[in-house]
Amino acid sequence: MLIVPEREIADLMTRKAAFDAVEKVFAAMASGEAYNFPVVREAIGHEDALYGFKGGFDRAGLTLGLKAGGYWPNNLDKRGIINHQSTVFLFDPDTGKVKAMVGGNLLTALRTAAASSVSIKHLARKDAKVIGMVGAGHQAKFQLRAALEQGNFEKVIGWNFHPEMLPNLEEVAKEAGLPFEAVELTGMTEADVIITITSSFDAILHADHVAPGTHVACMGTDTKGKQEVETALLARARVFTDEVAQSVSIGEAQHAIQDKTIKIEDVAQLGAVINGTNPGRTSDDEITLFDGTGVGLQDLAVAAAVVDLAVEKGVAIEVDF
Amino acid sequence: MLIVPEREIADLMTRKAAFDAVEKVFAAMASGEAYNFPVVREAIGHEDALYGFKGGFDRAGLTLGLKAGGYWPNNLDKRGIINHQSTVFLFDPDTGKVKAMVGGNLLTALRTAAASSVSIKHLARKDAKVIGMVGAGHQAKFQLRAALEQGNFEKVIGWNFHPEMLPNLEEVAKEAGLPFEAVELTGMTEADVIITITSSFDAILHADHVAPGTHVACMGTDTKGKQEVETALLARARVFTDEVAQSVSIGEAQHAIQDKTIKIEDVAQLGAVINGTNPGRTSDDEITLFDGTGVGLQDLAVAAAVVDLAVEKGVAIEVDF
Repeated sequence: MLIVPEREIADLMTRKAAFDAVEKVFAAMASGEAYNFPVVREAIGHEDALYGFKGGFDRAGLTLGLKAGGYWPNNLDKRGIINHQSTVFLFDPDTGKVKAMVGGNLLTALRTAAASSVSIKHLARKDAKVIGMVGAGHQAKFQLRAALEQGNFEKVIGWNFHPEMLPNLEEVAKEAGLPFEAVELTGMTEADVIITITSSFDAILHADHVAPGTHVACMGTDTKGKQEVETALLARARVFTDEVAQSVSIGEAQHAIQDKTIKIEDVAQLGAVINGTNPGRTSDDEITLFDGTGVGLQDLAVAAAVVDLAVEKGVAIEVDF
Repeated sequence: MLIVPEREIADLMTRKAAFDAVEKVFAAMASGEAYNFPVVREAIGHEDALYGFKGGFDRAGLTLGLKAGGYWPNNLDKRGIINHQSTVFLFDPDTGKVKAMVGGNLLTALRTAAASSVSIKHLARKDAKVIGMVGAGHQAKFQLRAALEQGNFEKVIGWNFHPEMLPNLEEVAKEAGLPFEAVELTGMTEADVIITITSSFDAILHADHVAPGTHVACMGTDTKGKQEVETALLARARVFTDEVAQSVSIGEAQHAIQDKTIKIEDVAQLGAVINGTNPGRTSDDEITLFDGTGVGLQDLAVAAAVVDLAVEKGVAIEVDF
């Protein structure tokens, strides 16, 4: 079996490889060739940790396995290591034997960034010029970097609950040679694409903060109770997601479903747009909204890609298991 | 992190170590210090395989992780490798980092054998002399070997749907210097302890095949629909299990619960007997029945034990992950 430690991932994995892997697996999910298993998520009553497993199987890519790990909120303060800790295990679908073990921390950031990026490619207007960021933490930098590779953006605008973090966004804008401007939420009407990436439990972005024709990628809501945007925005938008079942239960759509602003039939798979079985955006003044909840298959897809890259570059550790 | 490959397990793990680990974790489950996570089990639609995850956390032993793998029915015929394939992954409960990866195939056989053995120690009559086996396949040998280490058995009797497999049992009896006798099911009344270890979907052992005072360990039923003994036997017996929720849904007790022969309150945890909070057997003519369904914590417990042994003997592979 092969091992790719966390420390190798940064040199191996590219945003392009993550994008391609996520786009492909979203398509496989929509065509029924790939599916996610029920998620296990447990508050284990030790170190306030959340621990669990996200597994799945992609019959098209022959990728089987799981990501295991979770959130250890005291890691950084107590031990100087990051709070999110995860590992991906890939299995041989022909035999059930373990095939690879891959550090999952950076991969999780990259696959989450790739998801909003895939949604921009398939749902944003081709002439999108201004990208707006709601949220400016560590993950926001990943989202913005990946997003700027889609289309020809000319400007980045951003808002964060703690404005002192906005230089994070400015840094990424500068890397891409783009101007950055801090705005109020009302200023988000200037954006053609908006990414929300917060850990909010209340709607931050309101329907009237979003101009007609905008594509909104909501990437922060992955738990019951979390919320980033007003349900009225979902009512106005065409809503897409990675996985409908997660979107309506733990994703951004949970609230609009609960208050009956939208119906479950109103939530479509982004993969169907990729496959061409859903038309996606049909006019320049439509609002499209992608509810990115994060699925195990994304983790497996990027992990499988990085194993291939590690083998190619000779850095995979081989263990006779 | 540490790796203990499948090939090392046979030389490392002892029946004694498996017994101690399983007894301890059953006790921790009953005291509330250890719990199993929801089981994921998927027919993945490839190679007719069943694949899934059994996880748990033992706060007392600080053992966190999962067993991943399943059943690949074509492995033996197509590839000459065993059909059950599993791997155990242990995590550091303080940080969420992966700690060890351990081959799970032999461990699964040993922990299943240890479970009926623990039930015999705590529930069988101390003067038990005759042990009866219903089932004579590969796993039956493990069950019998472990059982014979409890008490002072003088004779082994056995029945199997395919009598040509009975020499499996005779072989183990001989190892222990005991006589073996093939019997009809009606002959099981001679036994003081009976272990059922089949993959039956119909009751094999009837209530009138079991004499008063017998301890019965039902080890084969781990899925909806499987059944080894008549529900009338559960009605006559005091019923114990590893985990009540599994026992009444996928274990031997599922049928007696469904036909209302017994109530869920009639099923007690074996761990409570180990802890002394349940008296266990209270007379010499009571029938006790242990419904062994198999839980993730058993796998984690034996895997943690084998990692310690591997470190002690210097055969654990250390990988800088």
